[in-house]
Amino acid sequence: MKQIIETVPNFSEGRDEARIEEILSAFRGRDNVKLLDLHKDIDHNRMVVTAVGEPEELKRAVVDAVGIAIRIIDLRIHQGEHPRMGAIDVIPFIPIKNATMAEAVSLSKEAAREIWEKYHLPVFLYEESASESSRKNLADIRKGQFEGMPEKLKLPGWKPDFGKREMHPTAGVVAVGARMPLIAFNINLDTDDIDIAWAIARTVRHTGGGLAYCKAIGIDLRERKIAQVSMNMTDYTQTPLYQALEFVRAEAKRYGVNVIGSEVVGLVPLAAIVDSAVYYMGLENFSTDKILEAKMTE
Amino acid sequence: MKQIIETVPNFSEGRDEARIEEILSAFRGRDNVKLLDLHKDIDHNRMVVTAVGEPEELKRAVVDAVGIAIRIIDLRIHQGEHPRMGAIDVIPFIPIKNATMAEAVSLSKEAAREIWEKYHLPVFLYEESASESSRKNLADIRKGQFEGMPEKLKLPGWKPDFGKREMHPTAGVVAVGARMPLIAFNINLDTDDIDIAWAIARTVRHTGGGLAYCKAIGIDLRERKIAQVSMNMTDYTQTPLYQALEFVRAEAKRYGVNVIGSEVVGLVPLAAIVDSAVYYMGLENFSTDKILEAKMTE
Repeated sequence: MKQIIETVPNFSEGRDEARIEEILSAFRGRDNVKLLDLHKDIDHNRMVVTAVGEPEELKRAVVDAVGIAIRIIDLRIHQGEHPRMGAIDVIPFIPIKNATMAEAVSLSKEAAREIWEKYHLPVFLYEESASESSRKNLADIRKGQFEGMPEKLKLPGWKPDFGKREMHPTAGVVAVGARMPLIAFNINLDTDDIDIAWAIARTVRHTGGGLAYCKAIGIDLRERKIAQVSMNMTDYTQTPLYQALEFVRAEAKRYGVNVIGSEVVGLVPLAAIVDSAVYYMGLENFSTDKILEAKMTE
Repeated sequence: MKQIIETVPNFSEGRDEARIEEILSAFRGRDNVKLLDLHKDIDHNRMVVTAVGEPEELKRAVVDAVGIAIRIIDLRIHQGEHPRMGAIDVIPFIPIKNATMAEAVSLSKEAAREIWEKYHLPVFLYEESASESSRKNLADIRKGQFEGMPEKLKLPGWKPDFGKREMHPTAGVVAVGARMPLIAFNINLDTDDIDIAWAIARTVRHTGGGLAYCKAIGIDLRERKIAQVSMNMTDYTQTPLYQALEFVRAEAKRYGVNVIGSEVVGLVPLAAIVDSAVYYMGLENFSTDKILEAKMTE
């Protein structure tokens, strides 16, 4: 059975079409690697690539893309609104099919080692690959950004996992790791009161004592004149989408508010939708291998 | 974009392993054809093959399988409980992906012509491919079975669409056509009263004035001591699964009965499950191309 891993590397280039295309070229024309999506942002001056493939070949594509990005991006002259610490900011590996988290972690460490050995770009391992808990969150590693990194690397807790206490002069540092697929899941309310959306968000999220694998904020959808609970579901296998939906629906009742719709941003794993269908339809003995298309690609 | 068609041919052999394997061999080892399932039944003495593939290559596999079945099955000595009119009883072609019903109809007619020209096996076109409405239902064509076919072929309305008014001496006749995917969808009730299941079945089905693309009967699940509404959804794009579920739930209330679960038998197209998830979750702007695995195989 073919193993499928996803990667969503972020590069600090979102304006120059020729450079964007050159980085993308590392993901094209390979057997067993498929480029699924490119999101580029001019204000952020950043691009986010989504690709899937068999582990070895996907890793090769990523390492090649890192080489290209180091050659063509110079962080000393990079301007953009999104925080960043390197020409390649972050590279997550995500187990999708017939692959365990342990395998994704081990792939991320191989990629990290190659990136250091080939290009002398220092690497921090993050999320499930982190060597200590203070390095799990990308935001903690990135704090100080490219400009503050030379000083930060000298601090006791911040020696890179691969490389010395010295950043790459033009490409900075990079975070590489493994994580679960992240699902951006938003729930719309029949109120324009943003305070209610925030109150529900604070209750549903992990830090508020709510669902274990859920981050949430309140959002004002001004054009539609409604408020939204905007969530990141960080492990849908542990906290399914329907649980977040039913939690928000129940909590909204306190305020006499109803759920009027929901939304998934970006791509979602099949199992996340099937789980919720199984719950609402009361389907017995159902799983993704009952789906014709899934069976076809087995 | 690759076109995918499914076929579910029924052969009149369910006992002899060597013969079963020989028929299956027509679907193996081909590029762009995948054998998904085999269901064989000793009492029925019948096998049901499920295969998918690109239209041309799938048609070739089917026509080859027909040739093998004609060579190794002799209906004159065939015994089995399931009604049958030929060594190959029926061959449906089903549009699955990037294929229209018109394309499936045209593929079925090409297959029918080749089957007649190559093997002199007379063919009736049925379902969406039928040349007149009296030939849409397989049961009407099959009535009289193999033994009654010589007489039936001489009747005014029963000249085959391909071939003469004379059946193949050992292989009889075959029905070939195109239809929508059929979903076997069962709903379990918290009562053991089979009369209630039948009353609901008669209301939900097309012939009872209920849902247009739904056939239904009541079933007694003796071991579980519950009754079940057992449905065939004949076009899930017109009558989605969730409509059947909500219809049955509402109707069950008349009798003070609740729905306690549901079940899909066999394989189900991705879109049928996504449709229902969209309904229950109130998902906005969602379709199967938001599913990661579907995007991967595009």
